[in-house]
Amino acid sequence: METVQIVKIGGKVINNDDLLQKVLRDFSRLPHKKVLVHGGGTLATELGERLGVEARLVDGRRITDRESVEITQMAYAGLVNPRIVALLQSFGQQAVGLTGADSDLLRSRKRPAGDIDFGFVGDVTQVNTGFLRLLLQQNLVPVFCALTHDGSGQILNTNADTIATELAIALSKHFATELIFTFEKSGVLSDVSDEQSLIARLTFTDYQQLLSRGAVHQGMRPKLDNAFRALRHGVRLVRIMNADQLENINQKSAVGTVVTLE
Amino acid sequence: METVQIVKIGGKVINNDDLLQKVLRDFSRLPHKKVLVHGGGTLATELGERLGVEARLVDGRRITDRESVEITQMAYAGLVNPRIVALLQSFGQQAVGLTGADSDLLRSRKRPAGDIDFGFVGDVTQVNTGFLRLLLQQNLVPVFCALTHDGSGQILNTNADTIATELAIALSKHFATELIFTFEKSGVLSDVSDEQSLIARLTFTDYQQLLSRGAVHQGMRPKLDNAFRALRHGVRLVRIMNADQLENINQKSAVGTVVTLE
Repeated sequence: METVQIVKIGGKVINNDDLLQKVLRDFSRLPHKKVLVHGGGTLATELGERLGVEARLVDGRRITDRESVEITQMAYAGLVNPRIVALLQSFGQQAVGLTGADSDLLRSRKRPAGDIDFGFVGDVTQVNTGFLRLLLQQNLVPVFCALTHDGSGQILNTNADTIATELAIALSKHFATELIFTFEKSGVLSDVSDEQSLIARLTFTDYQQLLSRGAVHQGMRPKLDNAFRALRHGVRLVRIMNADQLENINQKSAVGTVVTLE
Repeated sequence: METVQIVKIGGKVINNDDLLQKVLRDFSRLPHKKVLVHGGGTLATELGERLGVEARLVDGRRITDRESVEITQMAYAGLVNPRIVALLQSFGQQAVGLTGADSDLLRSRKRPAGDIDFGFVGDVTQVNTGFLRLLLQQNLVPVFCALTHDGSGQILNTNADTIATELAIALSKHFATELIFTFEKSGVLSDVSDEQSLIARLTFTDYQQLLSRGAVHQGMRPKLDNAFRALRHGVRLVRIMNADQLENINQKSAVGTVVTLE
């Protein structure tokens, strides 16, 4: 099967235009078929502050009400996504910006209010890969922002790591998929304050041990939960790495942390 | 050749959610292949006011600087486009939201500063219909907002009527195209204050006569200039009509003003 690399870039890259351009240039040179997924975190928070709407984060996930889902639409689909698409075009990539509403790619259900009311957050219930495969077959580069829809006309906010994971799992039926989470550290660290403590290869058993001694940073936990879920559902490889190393992911020397089941 | 109807909806429809839903439901029932183009005018102005950035309009066209092009991105690509796509999905349409940067569909050049500095406004220089035709062949419904790109990574603001016109002209090589401008009046009126003065059929000679007696409303002039340009470049039919009549455009009884060369 042909390889597809699903690359997620986060807020820190998006906040720094020089770094964003470097990362997108490196991404544009990756030889395989590829999908980009981006958040836009602090831009949404900043926009919310300018408009007098506060963001609340619980476990690194954004809590949204109707007005703040509109703010994430403005930040993710409005500011960031067209900017990324236009930059990729300038690097010769036929990029296509997407939300999960486009061609019903990512259907979600509003998360029920529990102890925490997550507001207009959608949990993905269905991934329709038909249009996505059409794009990939044409060597177009899908660029997803962190928005889904409920099928009844409402846009919902969905975590970008989760979207990347769901896309990678769904595409695994048709492609050899690699899921690449980029962020501002060199990978999973055994000591979060020490960049030299990179774990080059992390198994599920390792992860359980790290968890038991409280050594998993709060922001890393959902990423790793997603990583193992992806691997259990057909994704060939998950890599967690610094965005500025993207140019090296197809080299023989290891980059970041490779997550494996065993 | 197969028919494609390119429908432009304007700010008044987008400001009124009940009307927007009616218009989109009617649009979703049109039997031919179709393309939707939307502006989002007052939403951008309102957002600009909330953010302390003023919009300036000259001859009904928005004057933009770097910050206000970002505001139009937030309003058009962020708020309005995903909302329209999600609503069309709820009406069973496989809609796909687009800016001109997607797959390099609409390339434009920043308008040079003249007497008026139009700021980050792009004049369309190139329409690449390949991806658009792929979407139409798959019975997907392209939904364009009023943004283009310059090929060097910059998003530019382009009038939605102009985008609809350029798309209709470019598609005329492959389809029998009909260009439908909707707005809040019943069509071109010989007396702008009298809805009963609808001109059912307007030729270029008629238009010149209306112009010479100053009877063309300022906001109508660019629309009619676009209409005649479209007709001179292969578009089969141009109709200017009230958005709330969209369900009747394929009926035998006339709706709105049909613009013809002779």
